[in-house]
Amino acid sequence: MLRNLLDVVCRRQPYLVKGDFFSALLESYFDEAIAAPYLLQAIEEANASGFDAVIIAAFCDPTIEAAKEISTIPVYSLEETTFSVALLLGNRFSILTEKKHKVSVKQRHIRKYGLESRFASVRPLNMGVTEIASDPARVRQMGLEVGRLLVEEDGTEVIIMGCASVTGYSADLERELAVPVLDPVAVTFKVVEGLTEIGGRHSKRGLFAQPRPQKQR
Amino acid sequence: MLRNLLDVVCRRQPYLVKGDFFSALLESYFDEAIAAPYLLQAIEEANASGFDAVIIAAFCDPTIEAAKEISTIPVYSLEETTFSVALLLGNRFSILTEKKHKVSVKQRHIRKYGLESRFASVRPLNMGVTEIASDPARVRQMGLEVGRLLVEEDGTEVIIMGCASVTGYSADLERELAVPVLDPVAVTFKVVEGLTEIGGRHSKRGLFAQPRPQKQR
Amino acid sequence: MLRNLLDVVCRRQPYLVKGDFFSALLESYFDEAIAAPYLLQAIEEANASGFDAVIIAAFCDPTIEAAKEISTIPVYSLEETTFSVALLLGNRFSILTEKKHKVSVKQRHIRKYGLESRFASVRPLNMGVTEIASDPARVRQMGLEVGRLLVEEDGTEVIIMGCASVTGYSADLERELAVPVLDPVAVTFKVVEGLTEIGGRHSKRGLFAQPRPQKQR
Amino acid sequence: MLRNLLDVVCRRQPYLVKGDFFSALLESYFDEAIAAPYLLQAIEEANASGFDAVIIAAFCDPTIEAAKEISTIPVYSLEETTFSVALLLGNRFSILTEKKHKVSVKQRHIRKYGLESRFASVRPLNMGVTEIASDPARVRQMGLEVGRLLVEEDGTEVIIMGCASVTGYSADLERELAVPVLDPVAVTFKVVEGLTEIGGRHSKRGLFAQPRPQKQR
Amino acid sequence: MLRNLLDVVCRRQPYLVKGDFFSALLESYFDEAIAAPYLLQAIEEANASGFDAVIIAAFCDPTIEAAKEISTIPVYSLEETTFSVALLLGNRFSILTEKKHKVSVKQRHIRKYGLESRFASVRPLNMGVTEIASDPARVRQMGLEVGRLLVEEDGTEVIIMGCASVTGYSADLERELAVPVLDPVAVTFKVVEGLTEIGGRHSKRGLFAQPRPQKQR
Amino acid sequence: MLRNLLDVVCRRQPYLVKGDFFSALLESYFDEAIAAPYLLQAIEEANASGFDAVIIAAFCDPTIEAAKEISTIPVYSLEETTFSVALLLGNRFSILTEKKHKVSVKQRHIRKYGLESRFASVRPLNMGVTEIASDPARVRQMGLEVGRLLVEEDGTEVIIMGCASVTGYSADLERELAVPVLDPVAVTFKVVEGLTEIGGRHSKRGLFAQPRPQKQR
Repeated sequence: MLRNLLDVVCRRQPYLVKGDFFSALLESYFDEAIAAPYLLQAIEEANASGFDAVIIAAFCDPTIEAAKEISTIPVYSLEETTFSVALLLGNRFSILTEKKHKVSVKQRHIRKYGLESRFASVRPLNMGVTEIASDPARVRQMGLEVGRLLVEEDGTEVIIMGCASVTGYSADLERELAVPVLDPVAVTFKVVEGLTEIGGRHSKRGLFAQPRPQKQR
Repeated sequence: MLRNLLDVVCRRQPYLVKGDFFSALLESYFDEAIAAPYLLQAIEEANASGFDAVIIAAFCDPTIEAAKEISTIPVYSLEETTFSVALLLGNRFSILTEKKHKVSVKQRHIRKYGLESRFASVRPLNMGVTEIASDPARVRQMGLEVGRLLVEEDGTEVIIMGCASVTGYSADLERELAVPVLDPVAVTFKVVEGLTEIGGRHSKRGLFAQPRPQKQR
Repeated sequence: MLRNLLDVVCRRQPYLVKGDFFSALLESYFDEAIAAPYLLQAIEEANASGFDAVIIAAFCDPTIEAAKEISTIPVYSLEETTFSVALLLGNRFSILTEKKHKVSVKQRHIRKYGLESRFASVRPLNMGVTEIASDPARVRQMGLEVGRLLVEEDGTEVIIMGCASVTGYSADLERELAVPVLDPVAVTFKVVEGLTEIGGRHSKRGLFAQPRPQKQR
Repeated sequence: MLRNLLDVVCRRQPYLVKGDFFSALLESYFDEAIAAPYLLQAIEEANASGFDAVIIAAFCDPTIEAAKEISTIPVYSLEETTFSVALLLGNRFSILTEKKHKVSVKQRHIRKYGLESRFASVRPLNMGVTEIASDPARVRQMGLEVGRLLVEEDGTEVIIMGCASVTGYSADLERELAVPVLDPVAVTFKVVEGLTEIGGRHSKRGLFAQPRPQKQR
Repeated sequence: MLRNLLDVVCRRQPYLVKGDFFSALLESYFDEAIAAPYLLQAIEEANASGFDAVIIAAFCDPTIEAAKEISTIPVYSLEETTFSVALLLGNRFSILTEKKHKVSVKQRHIRKYGLESRFASVRPLNMGVTEIASDPARVRQMGLEVGRLLVEEDGTEVIIMGCASVTGYSADLERELAVPVLDPVAVTFKVVEGLTEIGGRHSKRGLFAQPRPQKQR
Repeated sequence: MLRNLLDVVCRRQPYLVKGDFFSALLESYFDEAIAAPYLLQAIEEANASGFDAVIIAAFCDPTIEAAKEISTIPVYSLEETTFSVALLLGNRFSILTEKKHKVSVKQRHIRKYGLESRFASVRPLNMGVTEIASDPARVRQMGLEVGRLLVEEDGTEVIIMGCASVTGYSADLERELAVPVLDPVAVTFKVVEGLTEIGGRHSKRGLFAQPRPQKQR
């Protein structure tokens, strides 16, 4: 499907800004801040190169507001798009994240997006990236354990895989837990593809108004 | 794009439950209640006929919870889907509706969906359906006038055409008002198409749990 | 005052639309949707027969918005009225419900009514209707167990018996748990009686505006 | 039933703590604080004298939490009870108050009670108590003017007469404005009468827990 | 530090209204109501005596609105000020309180101040004042136990010592729990000192408007 | 007081990260993102140089989360601190900003900080930085005009000067409008000074947890 789109839109495929674009993970606000200038440069290149849309392929929505400000082509990110889809699939959703301190980060994101009353909970796997990469059996086991808590204790109806390193397990978890388990990358690509086709674009009034060049201020 | 999908899914195109399926409009909770049994029958037929998904093509999301309860294939409706997309395009969105009493109805929908803090306002055209059908020049003029109030007074960043009879005017309004003006039908079809392709389905735990047959209770 | 009313209304006692009026329980949104046309017909008959008010005697407030739309006499339902009374008796209230999936349904009702910050929790008895009918000792035991969790774990101050089949146990529970345990039927009848006497009626502007006949649209 | 109650309670009619019980109005938090010890003494007397319930007949709900703390018979006040009834009659309600600075006071009350999303607005008459007493024609005119703003500008569906001095005008306003206009005294007496009959009482766990005598602490 | 301030500001030291100013603790709304006239008299004296500011040194913010109404010099209280500081130090804060029924009281305060989404939880020590005074080892042990629940179970990031009798333990707890543990008295004095120096004062429009003398009404 | 502090802390004065630290203003999310690495470097230097605290002296709180993450000394910014103080001075506060598109930005900040129900409004001066610098008479006139709207139309009780270029006018406006008009720089310095003296520091659990070095992940 995506390929067909790619064929049709020619070289105008959605432009993927990878979360690890400078050989590092985005695990903190600090990481996001350091990566921001590189990311914004990629946004500008995508605008200059005739792409139809940009997806910032990181679940923390890094620099998303600045990216939308400077871009005239639509910019989407994984977290906001997956939240929007989760709203359609159940009453309340939860996030499965890697580490404990992310719990508070996710709560603040939810509040920034105004979705508190649709949010059930966030729980960590409590596994490091290296461990995740080296011990898939344990990821599967922990994912199931934590997923069951999300469903049984927190009453969630939809689970979002909130870290890139474990999205590969979403199909398995969905089968075991009997609730939708969303892979943010898959979800976002499909939604963006569709919206791009019908000319969807973000508002340039208000939050994402184009900044004036410094010299004109 | 859509054609490719149609080809691939064969006769499994998203099943459109028309808002006017019994030669009448859905203008009130009463209309929705009277239409509900017919709509639910259509949902059951769509499940039995091998469709991939159902779109309830009315902006009031009629009988949406019951429809999702009884359906194992995904069910979407225009309002919820367009709200989800509006969240991606600006900080706060507004609804352009037909008649004044709908203002309160839309506020309650927004609250039901937990989106109060992303909602800017709702304003009516104050035109009847007949007038809308017979006087396109006045629709255009009124749409522009009310749209300007949404942007200037209410500070909205995204406008949703909240009544089927005026969605035809969305492209014009978007150009004049310089904010996204969403046609719920176009938006919903694209999002549903995409989600259907990747196997997206609503949760059958919690809000939309399958009702047991009456005899087993 | 009330006697006069009772005398005058004589056969015009508040008109009870029974939750099981077509020999079936309302256990799901689907049940409510299928019952809606019958319920609305009863509302119209009550209006035509000179009744003073209508109580929809089901705790899920089925079709309440449509019923209020078409009725010029006041219409009340059990859930909304019991919520309003619970607000007067403590800081936060909880709902005791029958089955687990109702948890999410009740959360959505609370949100629709805008009462999230006065709501403590909802917990299910996890007993089927048949079991409830045949094993009162176990209902009493389970009610006490779950009630204690509501009080001790969730810190609730008022409990609402959220399912018709167990309202008979409210006096017992209230004595054991030392918090008010509300029987929605008793509460609603008294409040409606009082409000009817002083001419209370719902607003016909906004949410419950009278729908126009289809031919006039 | 109610008659029996009326017979039994005889001289035990709900005990009215008048808002002006020390020949002064309650127009500020200061007035409420100064009146508090007298009001609490009246609550204790009502408990000792075998009354069934107490109504604090002031719209600002003065000392309501302390009154409920020390009372084992139910205590209600005008504001909280009228808010609860307004929730049943429309989607959002407004308050008509006397003076401008009360606007902020009412907003804070609404927030304390957790009813922000059902609240439309509060607007003042901008008339002093003396003027209200001496110029009924102007009260009527101003009430109508401000009432129209509540309905037309703020989209309210139910109006609460939020000051004792103007409740006499509610029937007139209701007829002119075509929305319910609630007289808090009438509403509260009827609701309390009904709830008292069925043994309703406020929770003594949590917010209104009985204070221990000072010596035992 | 404070002493230096006292020296410098001469007789203009912040005027401390002690929570126990009539040899009794403020443990309930009742206690606050009985103390109110004395507290307000102290506020008036502070205004008359040329003090720069008043701190009501009780964590329940007793009579705070009335105090601000009648005072032209700034009035602060411990709870509101400590909440404001907690907002700066972490995403969500918790309160450690003495007794269980305070849980509901604190929740209502949080709601009155509109801070629900920054509030993690409140948990009681479940120790009486006498026990707290006589058994410091147990206070330390219980404080640590409950503090760990606040951090581990409720995910709090900042703890407020919500009862005067245990503020002495905040430094110990902060070291053990590795989150800020705020002593409301210390925090409030510093903030008030700073704001007083730059002429900060509360608004006399709206909520805290000066009440008119009774005779002029 | 301040002098004493300055003397004692010697070279440890609060470290000012100027909003214009690279000869440019921070007027957009883009500006903030580009400035972030420089700002974070300054935070690290302040940590290494023995300062007691850092104030990020820009009203948009740029990079505040990342700054708090990497810093073990306390970090504060103007917006969050001024919001916290405004909560103490009135029921609801407003922001006076420079340009119209900032309205939406400020609304999102308010939501991120969870302060929606204490927020009255934000209104722009609609003047550019150059104009503000060159025409003080007009700034004074516009500030008064917009300030009156904030007070009269929006019912605000406290005004925050939300742009560095106009804080010089706050004393004048406060005198004319008769509500507190807060200068974020003055307010923040005093609050930070006080909190620093008593050892206040932000939580390093949760939202601001120290990021691990990249190599250890």
